Order: sequence, then structure tokens, then C-alpha cells
Amino acid sequence: MRDFSSDHSWLSLNTATVRKQGDLLQIIDACARHGIRAIDPWRDQVAAVGLDRAVRAVRDAGLELSGYCRGGMFTSDASRRGEVRDDNRRCVDEAKALGAPCVVLVVGGLPQYSRPGSEASKDIVAARGQIEEALADMLDYAKQAELPLAIEPLHPAYAADRACVNTTKQALDICDRLDPARSGMLGVALDVYHIWWDPELMDQIARAGKDRLLAFHVCDWLVPTRDILNDRGMMGDGVIDIKSARAAVEAQGFAGYSEIEIFSNDWWGRPMDEVLRTCIERHKTVV
Amino acid sequence: MRDFSSDHSWLSLNTATVRKQGDLLQIIDACARHGIRAIDPWRDQVAAVGLDRAVRAVRDAGLELSGYCRGGMFTSDASRRGEVRDDNRRCVDEAKALGAPCVVLVVGGLPQYSRPGSEASKDIVAARGQIEEALADMLDYAKQAELPLAIEPLHPAYAADRACVNTTKQALDICDRLDPARSGMLGVALDVYHIWWDPELMDQIARAGKDRLLAFHVCDWLVPTRDILNDRGMMGDGVIDIKSARAAVEAQGFAGYSEIEIFSNDWWGRPMDEVLRTCIERHKTVV
Repeated sequence: MRDFSSDHSWLSLNTATVRKQGDLLQIIDACARHGIRAIDPWRDQVAAVGLDRAVRAVRDAGLELSGYCRGGMFTSDASRRGEVRDDNRRCVDEAKALGAPCVVLVVGGLPQYSRPGSEASKDIVAARGQIEEALADMLDYAKQAELPLAIEPLHPAYAADRACVNTTKQALDICDRLDPARSGMLGVALDVYHIWWDPELMDQIARAGKDRLLAFHVCDWLVPTRDILNDRGMMGDGVIDIKSARAAVEAQGFAGYSEIEIFSNDWWGRPMDEVLRTCIERHKTVV
Repeated sequence: MRDFSSDHSWLSLNTATVRKQGDLLQIIDACARHGIRAIDPWRDQVAAVGLDRAVRAVRDAGLELSGYCRGGMFTSDASRRGEVRDDNRRCVDEAKALGAPCVVLVVGGLPQYSRPGSEASKDIVAARGQIEEALADMLDYAKQAELPLAIEPLHPAYAADRACVNTTKQALDICDRLDPARSGMLGVALDVYHIWWDPELMDQIARAGKDRLLAFHVCDWLVPTRDILNDRGMMGDGVIDIKSARAAVEAQGFAGYSEIEIFSNDWWGRPMDEVLRTCIERHKTVV
């Protein structure tokens, strides 16, 4: 297991962590100030400053990307299937332009939440079928672009509205069906927040292996959690044994960034420099 | 699958659903007014009126029980192991006195939340080991009392503070290890709220079979969920396909009550009769 205690060269910042404090260009400046080497930007943050400016800013700052957030939301009613396909192809193009190593996929929940306006359904089995079909189509496109796709299993609390792929096993089962050759073009993005509770976690990380482990995200689970979406904790403030999870992915050969992704009304209310200083300190001590 | 549309003879009321509107005796009176045949009372509600009075009130009203809530909270530090054992034995005794068909078990999360005052830990694997050990001890006691134990897998959102048995598979694996002979003394209580998201749900219900299916609970998952503990929905107001879940347990031979258990700041704020009328109507139409 790599020693993170003396520097933060393997810290990547998911830019949603400070999305309320500034635009993407300001976040990139702050990363430069704090010696942060990598980011994972969100599509809306890129769009807000323009793709070309974002590409230049990343290049000028000498930043790497640890991923691009996010593709997916594959579930919809029939009238929106074209929108789903086109939207995800654009996402691949943007990720390519930015030099991202993978697109992180939040696959979608029930169609009425995934693609608002879609006819309402309670059929989660059908939703899962639709996800696999749309993902297969996106994978064809991503392969041509040589841009790997990383399925992010989301905590079951988000099964209805964000992603009904909710365990590492379920994500890896999809990988095995759509990419049995383990081409390196399809894998998982594992965020400790979503998977820490899973009794099969360690077995599934071992099953994933290096070629399926495309991204590793960290934050913490707070008790109590006051907001189901926007009350993630800073690493060390909650109950997750983060080092054990990192040890497990590194035992498989994962040698990429530990990406910090915190959606938090609390941390969004603090100055950007304070947030980044805390991220760096916790990266050294808790991650 | 049984037809519930014309009456509510298979509706049981988990008394937490109206815990803020009255004490257990008042709830029992209200069940009589509404022709509800069964309840699942909570230990604190029984204690508040006294066990003997509760036993008499249940008997005088001709009520059945569909379970007794709840045993468990098995995780603690060493200094509280005796408390855990004694507390759970008392729970079995009370259930026996009340004529409950099973004790519902919420097994506990990390020790500091399960038994407050216990030393803090992030070791969920250790917590799970401790649960199995304490459950084995309780099972010996419950067998002598001929009182079955029903492990309730809780939604992963409660893994830290309430139960780190979070899937039906995990609960059934414990059943198989502690009761390989399928004696009928150990099984599961399945609440759609906790398990609806699980991609393995239907397979695991089939695996459980009739002798492991000791209780079936219903409510609904709301989007958005505004409170992680106390914002369960009335059946029909959320996204859960309840009928499919009931069809699956009944296909295994389950023929017991559909127990309504709603923790909801919203419904706790309404008159008891309104809540019960709504439960009965939704039982006929949505469950």
C-alpha cells in the first residue's frame, strides 16, 4: 500500500467538492495554489466556462484528470432514447478533449427521475435491462474513441432516482457480460461512500482486478446523515474504514489517484482554500 | 397470490406507525374500531403500559400478533455483552407472554451506535462477527422458549447505526450457518423498504422458502426522501412495486400478515383514525 503521509501527489479533486465556491477556472487556480495534481470535473462545470477554455485551463495548469463526471442516466421512456444516446456520445467526446482516463457513469434509476418528463415506472428490473442496452451502445462509441467507461455502483439509497446499479458485484456482472474479454474499456469507479457497507466488498474488489478498477473515490459516511444527497463527510469525520478499502484496491494493482468527492452543504459553505487544505491534511492522515 | 381487494383480514399494524398518536392501549382500541386483526408492538410501547396490561389488552381485543419489535442490537464493547444477552432474553420472554409468532431482530451496527457508550469502532467486519456470536446465544434461549427469531435485513443506509446485516442474502447466509437444519426457529423478516432495491431480491426470496419467511412488512420509498429514518411513505406514494414482492413471498408459501410499518414525521402528525383508514384503503389497492 502506498504511503500517502508525506505528500499529496495521489490526491485528485472531484470538482463538485467546491462547486459552490467558484467556477472551474477558479477551482483549477486553487488546485495550482495547493499543489493538487489532478481533478475530475463535472460536465456542467465544463459547460459553464466552455469546453475549449476548460481544455486550455487544464493544459496550462499541467493538471491530469482522474475521470470525467458523468455519463449515464440511461433510463428513459421511448421518446427520449435518442437524447440519451446523443448526450452520452457528447460526454465521450468531451472527456477525450479534456484528456480524461475514463468517463464515470451514473447509470440512472427509474426513468422519470433519470430523464425527467419520461413516463413514470416502478419497474426496476426493466430499468436495469434498459441500462445494459444503452451502455452497450455507448461502449461501442467509447471503444472507437479509446475512452474507457467506469460504471459507478451507487449506494442503494439512490436506486430510485440516480442509479439502480447498487453493488460492486452488480456492476462487475455487467462488465463481464458486455466486455468478457476484459479489454480495459469497461470497468468500475468505486467510491467508498457507496460501497463501504457491502458484505461482499472485499471479495468483489479482488474479483475486479486491476483492469476493471478504473477509479477510486473517497469521502466519509456521517452518523447521522442529515441529507440523503448532500451530507457526505470529510474523510475521518465518519465511520468508513477508508484505508482498508484503499489497501484492497491497491492489492489488485490499482495505482491511480484517490479522488476526493464530497457533496456537502457544510463544506460548500466554507472558503475554497479551507476545504482544500483540509482535503490535503486528511488525505495524508486518513486516506 | 391472495386477493386483498375486498377486505383487510391480512393487514397487521406495526404499532410504531401511530406511536405519536397514542399509547398501546389506545392503538389497540383503534384497531378494534377499524377491524384490524393483528399488530406488531414495540417493546417500549409495551413497557410504557406494562407487560401485564399489554397482554390483557391484546387478549381482550382478540388480536393476533405478527411479530414483536424488536430484539437485537447485538454489537457492543466487552463491558456491555452481559447487557446485550440479558436484554435479548427478556425480549424473548415478553414476546412469549404476548403470544408473538416471532421476535424481529434489528441486529445492530457499529457498537457505539448499537449500544451507546460502547467504545467507537469502524470495523464493520468485526461487528458482523459479533452479531453472529450473540445471535447464536439468543437462538439457544429462543429455542427453549419455542419462539422463532426473524433477522430483518435493514437498508444499507442504516449499516452504521442500526443493522449491518443489509441484504436478504446476508441474512439467509447467517440462517444457514446457525440453523442448517432449517428448524423453523430462525428466519427473516422482509420489509420492502429495506430490500426493494436489491438486484438479487427475487432469487433470495426463492432461496428463503416458506420456513425462513417469518414476516413481511410494507410501506413505500419516497423520492425525495427528506429524512433518512422518519420519512417512509404510505404504500402507493412511492416507487416500490409492492405487489411483485408480495407475489414472490406468497409463491414460496408465505400466508401470513402484510404488516404495515411506517416511520413518518408526516403520518405521525395526522389523526390515528385517518392513518388507519388510509392503511386499510392502500392495503386493498396497492399491497
